[in-house]
Amino acid sequence: MKPISVTEQTQVKRGPKKACYDRETIYRIYDDTYLCHIGATIHGQAVVQPNLHWRIGDELLVHGSAKNALFQSILQGEKACITVSTLDGLVFARSAFHHSVNFRSVMLYGQGRLIEDEQEKRAALDALLERYSPGRSGEARPPNDTELKATSVFAFPIEEVSAKIRTGGPVDDPADMALDVWAGVRPVETRVGELIVD
Amino acid sequence: MKPISVTEQTQVKRGPKKACYDRETIYRIYDDTYLCHIGATIHGQAVVQPNLHWRIGDELLVHGSAKNALFQSILQGEKACITVSTLDGLVFARSAFHHSVNFRSVMLYGQGRLIEDEQEKRAALDALLERYSPGRSGEARPPNDTELKATSVFAFPIEEVSAKIRTGGPVDDPADMALDVWAGVRPVETRVGELIVD
Repeated sequence: MKPISVTEQTQVKRGPKKACYDRETIYRIYDDTYLCHIGATIHGQAVVQPNLHWRIGDELLVHGSAKNALFQSILQGEKACITVSTLDGLVFARSAFHHSVNFRSVMLYGQGRLIEDEQEKRAALDALLERYSPGRSGEARPPNDTELKATSVFAFPIEEVSAKIRTGGPVDDPADMALDVWAGVRPVETRVGELIVD
Repeated sequence: MKPISVTEQTQVKRGPKKACYDRETIYRIYDDTYLCHIGATIHGQAVVQPNLHWRIGDELLVHGSAKNALFQSILQGEKACITVSTLDGLVFARSAFHHSVNFRSVMLYGQGRLIEDEQEKRAALDALLERYSPGRSGEARPPNDTELKATSVFAFPIEEVSAKIRTGGPVDDPADMALDVWAGVRPVETRVGELIVD
């Protein structure tokens, strides 16, 4: 896998020991999570919208209404910041200050490429369905021309990107270790339940 | 509860039927979720960082390192966009196009107020601990002066705000209802597990 070059923008400054620039780890975070938050400016104001991401090779994909103002802004060349975060645990320390959370997050900066080629667009949308239910793209009715036109799909290069990860238990000051205060981690998990048939 | 005025910025344009400007509903979403994503510009570039939010009355609070570049930008008067989203279900429709997700999200625009008064700051940080474990602020060692100084706490008025909510099953085109394709919802849930003692 091609190594990731750290840029001024993606260099993790706060908590650099939690930083990670490893492509495999970043891809796993993308594949393990459903929600992303897309930020871009609209008339100079930062706007953050939730979206679902998926990955095809070295690109991160998002889609939505072609009329979405944030997408319009990205289309006009605004560089986006797409952040994916997952909470893995609540960390209880002996001191208030050292309370923390276990998490994995990825921040990506990039210019979105609108997928215009019909075949590529259909394949991208198929990959989104496959992500949620393998085989689904061969079962559901495919998009007709009007539906396809109403949907914009953007691909972002996974290049200007960094991850930040915290794992493990609380890290207390040595002087606090003797305090009679409970400490530990409560794991946090996202679960997808069984199908409720329509 | 004071009603929320809809502004040009908070008016939901895409999927207006999913829009909600009800304070009680918005507060419930804030209280039900842990992760928020804070967006603001740094030298004109939108930056989106994950954070933990909590609510005190009609203000949404976030905290972090006083040296954080995004916080510095907010301190300099940049209007932030804070988005909280939770995924509640994967919605499988008979057509690819009508696949969807059940979700609740809140977008807030606002200027952050740095909490400088020591008593107010300590009370705010206590409220954060209480949120995760009632009684915790009376147990853990309180922040010393150095720790308190290293942490910035910002309060945002919950005023320029809107929610978007989708619930229920797939909404298929009538013509697709006869297709031999399974459809339904897989609920998604975030669970906090039992304490693993340190």
